[in-house]
Amino acid sequence: MFDPTSPPSIDECPFCAIAAAHAPYDPRRPPASLDADLTTPASFVVLSTPRLVAFLDIMPLSPGHLLLCPRPHRPKLTDATPAEARELGAYVRVLSAALARATGVDDWNVVQNNGAAASQVVPHVHYHLIPRPEIRASGRLSESFTMFGKGRREELDDDDAEKLAAAIRREAAAVLAEEQEQDDEEREGPPRKAKL
Amino acid sequence: MFDPTSPPSIDECPFCAIAAAHAPYDPRRPPASLDADLTTPASFVVLSTPRLVAFLDIMPLSPGHLLLCPRPHRPKLTDATPAEARELGAYVRVLSAALARATGVDDWNVVQNNGAAASQVVPHVHYHLIPRPEIRASGRLSESFTMFGKGRREELDDDDAEKLAAAIRREAAAVLAEEQEQDDEEREGPPRKAKL
Repeated sequence: MFDPTSPPSIDECPFCAIAAAHAPYDPRRPPASLDADLTTPASFVVLSTPRLVAFLDIMPLSPGHLLLCPRPHRPKLTDATPAEARELGAYVRVLSAALARATGVDDWNVVQNNGAAASQVVPHVHYHLIPRPEIRASGRLSESFTMFGKGRREELDDDDAEKLAAAIRREAAAVLAEEQEQDDEEREGPPRKAKL
Repeated sequence: MFDPTSPPSIDECPFCAIAAAHAPYDPRRPPASLDADLTTPASFVVLSTPRLVAFLDIMPLSPGHLLLCPRPHRPKLTDATPAEARELGAYVRVLSAALARATGVDDWNVVQNNGAAASQVVPHVHYHLIPRPEIRASGRLSESFTMFGKGRREELDDDDAEKLAAAIRREAAAVLAEEQEQDDEEREGPPRKAKL
């Protein structure tokens, strides 16, 4: 378990640095722009709640590749609290939907690696969400593309990243608003007219 | 979204068949033995709640490779309900801890594939939990081992599987009992003596 008496310094853990630099906001009312330069390298945040933070991977396997983690430093998933694990599960789904809408890519992988033998690189628990465009047919997709942590990565372009992050924040808010509406309808009975 | 008016028949979806064959039990008081032959092929269940079911993969990438899914037929993670997504997140953590204890393997991958381009084979949303024994050094680990859905798989041995599934159910119950104890302590203040 994580020992709160000796958290790593911000210099030691890049994900702690991102969490420390970005205050929580209401994900249903996301800011239209966020300062990416609060950290070095820049961080393009797509979600920031009191418990969790999500941001674009700086060496994406595909456009939109993002990471979701608890704010506190937890090495492996088993070090997260039950409440954090539940919220991670909820937002993996919400961000998956937002990512598909923002990128137009309908297939994706969710990956969470624990320990060196499992290819975990940064020892602060994180879920990868990786869009999988249909590029097999074109011959561009090498077998290694689907190998985690080993595919071809390209550095993030800052202008593209800023636009993409804003789109994902906006779509996540839309997903949450639709859920709220569904919840209300379930409590109040079915709507009078089916929605198209 | 999943259309509940036309769920696939049990013959069409192997995971629906497993969910239909195995009634929920209280995961804090798991059965010592479960009938694996309620389905063909046999199913070795490690968790069964009103919302979720988990079982050993019949073609494991490593011993203990297991799958966790919602009972209802949901093709992709975005088709799961918010409540299902939260419970999946909670039990991915609980089963990860149980799996590490039952196998003695401390590193593992969590993988959840959505759509054909992302290597999803069975179109009923499922998280893979895959222990990663330290076998790189021995030269037995080919690069393909870490490639999802493409590593070397071996058929499950039924006797081994039954013992392993029982051990995972037992360890999951232990993890849940410890969490309950932590919750109680937090409510009642710190214990008088530190537990070793």
